[in-house]
Amino acid sequence: MLDALVVTPDLPADLERRDPRDTLGLPEKDEAGALLDELLEELSSLQECLYAEGRRSVLLVLQGLDASGKDGTIRRVFTGVNPQGCHVTSFKAPTPVELAHDFLWRVHAHCPARGMIGIFNRSHYEDVVTVGVLGLAPEEVWRRRPERIVEFERLLTEEGTTVLKCFLHVSAEEQRERFAERLADPAKRWKHNPRDEETSRRFGEYVAAYDEALTATSTEGAPWYVIPADRNWVRNFAVAKVLVEALRRLDPQFPDAPPEQKSAQFGITGDRTDARRSNT
Amino acid sequence: MLDALVVTPDLPADLERRDPRDTLGLPEKDEAGALLDELLEELSSLQECLYAEGRRSVLLVLQGLDASGKDGTIRRVFTGVNPQGCHVTSFKAPTPVELAHDFLWRVHAHCPARGMIGIFNRSHYEDVVTVGVLGLAPEEVWRRRPERIVEFERLLTEEGTTVLKCFLHVSAEEQRERFAERLADPAKRWKHNPRDEETSRRFGEYVAAYDEALTATSTEGAPWYVIPADRNWVRNFAVAKVLVEALRRLDPQFPDAPPEQKSAQFGITGDRTDARRSNT
Repeated sequence: MLDALVVTPDLPADLERRDPRDTLGLPEKDEAGALLDELLEELSSLQECLYAEGRRSVLLVLQGLDASGKDGTIRRVFTGVNPQGCHVTSFKAPTPVELAHDFLWRVHAHCPARGMIGIFNRSHYEDVVTVGVLGLAPEEVWRRRPERIVEFERLLTEEGTTVLKCFLHVSAEEQRERFAERLADPAKRWKHNPRDEETSRRFGEYVAAYDEALTATSTEGAPWYVIPADRNWVRNFAVAKVLVEALRRLDPQFPDAPPEQKSAQFGITGDRTDARRSNT
Repeated sequence: MLDALVVTPDLPADLERRDPRDTLGLPEKDEAGALLDELLEELSSLQECLYAEGRRSVLLVLQGLDASGKDGTIRRVFTGVNPQGCHVTSFKAPTPVELAHDFLWRVHAHCPARGMIGIFNRSHYEDVVTVGVLGLAPEEVWRRRPERIVEFERLLTEEGTTVLKCFLHVSAEEQRERFAERLADPAKRWKHNPRDEETSRRFGEYVAAYDEALTATSTEGAPWYVIPADRNWVRNFAVAKVLVEALRRLDPQFPDAPPEQKSAQFGITGDRTDARRSNT
């Protein structure tokens, strides 16, 4: 299933040809919900093991247009995972202190420690896509950022973090409906943004900008997955699947001994031990 | 003077041929002290202006073997600069939390904000040189790090930070003398490290490792300067000179209006302004 979703490195992301209403061959909604629950149980076990192992980490980057379902995905997929081992960071409009640093400064600070699953609700990709579409920085500034991002994510990957990036791909119609729903539903009204209308009008520009950004930054080590997001249950299943398959590949193991004893086994006698050694 | 000290990108650092006792054509010690004081007055003015401008920053990385005079340099060069605009970070052996992240995580967090001069007393170069010499990580781990460092420093440079790196080049004899002095002088004894003797014995290995690291990471945007460090007064003058010349080139200007008003001039109407735009 995931092979169809991944953006193959060096090939165009080609969002136009990807159907936001795709069901990925899943059975009906209810049955798919049961499959998702199974997957989430596995996620929970794998997470526990990753945490106990304490050697590697996973970073899940969630991007998508407004109302593509980032918050809903996190709620459905991670409720039930021990929050001690997973940390969500929601990146909003940068603060003055954040703006006083390079654009990767604030995201780097929140990258997951060994043993952790980090989830980015929005990320450094806003500094390419949103900044580009809204013209918040000169073109040469955001144009050079994808290359820096590739380098940054390679650093993370090399040093022990599995980087997974999911683009929640919603259609213009679905986005419009959800915006309208936000106004109608008192439980969703807090999500309404006076700029929703403008966002809706510029839908095509945003998709084009994402297309370009995904194409430029999907790599072997830190691939993008385009998640059909018009149907919440498909979207949730697909994101959980991306995560669980990656964790299966990592195959974390409960350690025999607590980490202190393990590092003593390495025969480090100096006062400057480097646990990072263990991540290759 | 600085042309002779810089490590030309893509050429070997060649520490062997550089004389730690060089006086760089400076006059006698006392006269040079007066020249340094003049330079430091200029540093102080330039720093004030950089701070007021609030658009760019400077990062000075100080590396050197033990007892090469990093602390002394900072004391002599920066005492007299307004500490509100300059921030020293001393990197010690990494803590467990730091070790749980990639090696650039802790240094990135302390990179200077716009308007600031950041001084690193030791840095990410320890994760190449010290880790390599002491074998604290497998060779393939520290071998790939210089490339990541070049990329990281390019990010900083692009986003508005002038990166200057000074290697305090001390001779084996001078280092031995200083180690001995640390034991003899009650005011310096706290600096004694039981591992000084081993460090001294491995002097050649450290120099070779630095030679390699400097060669691999001296770039147009983030050059290394090899500072003759056997004589404190030469070392202090040279480091101050590196800094002042870079600040002169930056030529910071007092702004006409406070930053808030300036960004309004940019005509940003959205809720997500990007001050980073102003740094090109």
